[in-house]
Amino acid sequence: MIRIEITREPLPARESDGASGAIVEFHGVVRGNEEGRAITGLEYECHVEMAERQLRLIAEEVSARHAFRGLTVLHRVGPIDVGEASLYVRAEAPHREAAFSGTMELIERLKQDVPIWKQPY
Amino acid sequence: MIRIEITREPLPARESDGASGAIVEFHGVVRGNEEGRAITGLEYECHVEMAERQLRLIAEEVSARHAFRGLTVLHRVGPIDVGEASLYVRAEAPHREAAFSGTMELIERLKQDVPIWKQPY
Repeated sequence: MIRIEITREPLPARESDGASGAIVEFHGVVRGNEEGRAITGLEYECHVEMAERQLRLIAEEVSARHAFRGLTVLHRVGPIDVGEASLYVRAEAPHREAAFSGTMELIERLKQDVPIWKQPY
Repeated sequence: MIRIEITREPLPARESDGASGAIVEFHGVVRGNEEGRAITGLEYECHVEMAERQLRLIAEEVSARHAFRGLTVLHRVGPIDVGEASLYVRAEAPHREAAFSGTMELIERLKQDVPIWKQPY
């Protein structure tokens, strides 16, 4: 489904101090298929304090290097049904190249280095 | 400002049929500085039908190549004050690599090939 529109109406309002030209948001959603078999959801578990601490280190490093002006990272844990989000990231930067590459890098490093486990149900 | 949170609460709800694992949203925002001088906003103008037609061609091509499961592209025209968005893109795909690379490609091609002009005020 493709929707295209040129409009004179305001787009969904997004706060900014006039220095951020790009906001990138990412939603990681649980798919109905895990390694070829149908699932109902994924159960995510972690040691919350340890995961938050590790995630903050990565976030601070990526944020500084890409000159982010704002960064939000929310990771849901517990049982997450198919179609619901397990991860939300929002990055604000002066230019879109930094917003995109920093967001992608943050997600890669989160998946590699932050101890959060998942199990299908 | 960095916000990190591991939570058991649902993240902002996002519809999905269970086949899309990644949703990427982009907001292009007018910055207070254009080529080194302070501005109040940007006035965007275009021939609406021509721009929508060209944008749809690009959207269909990018969407098919990256196996998007949904794509929205909204471009605002008229006077847009600093801090407000001129462009909104939302792409839904099975995997995040396609969602990110397709979204970036769509924006590049929009800026290169769709006849929309802007002027600072």
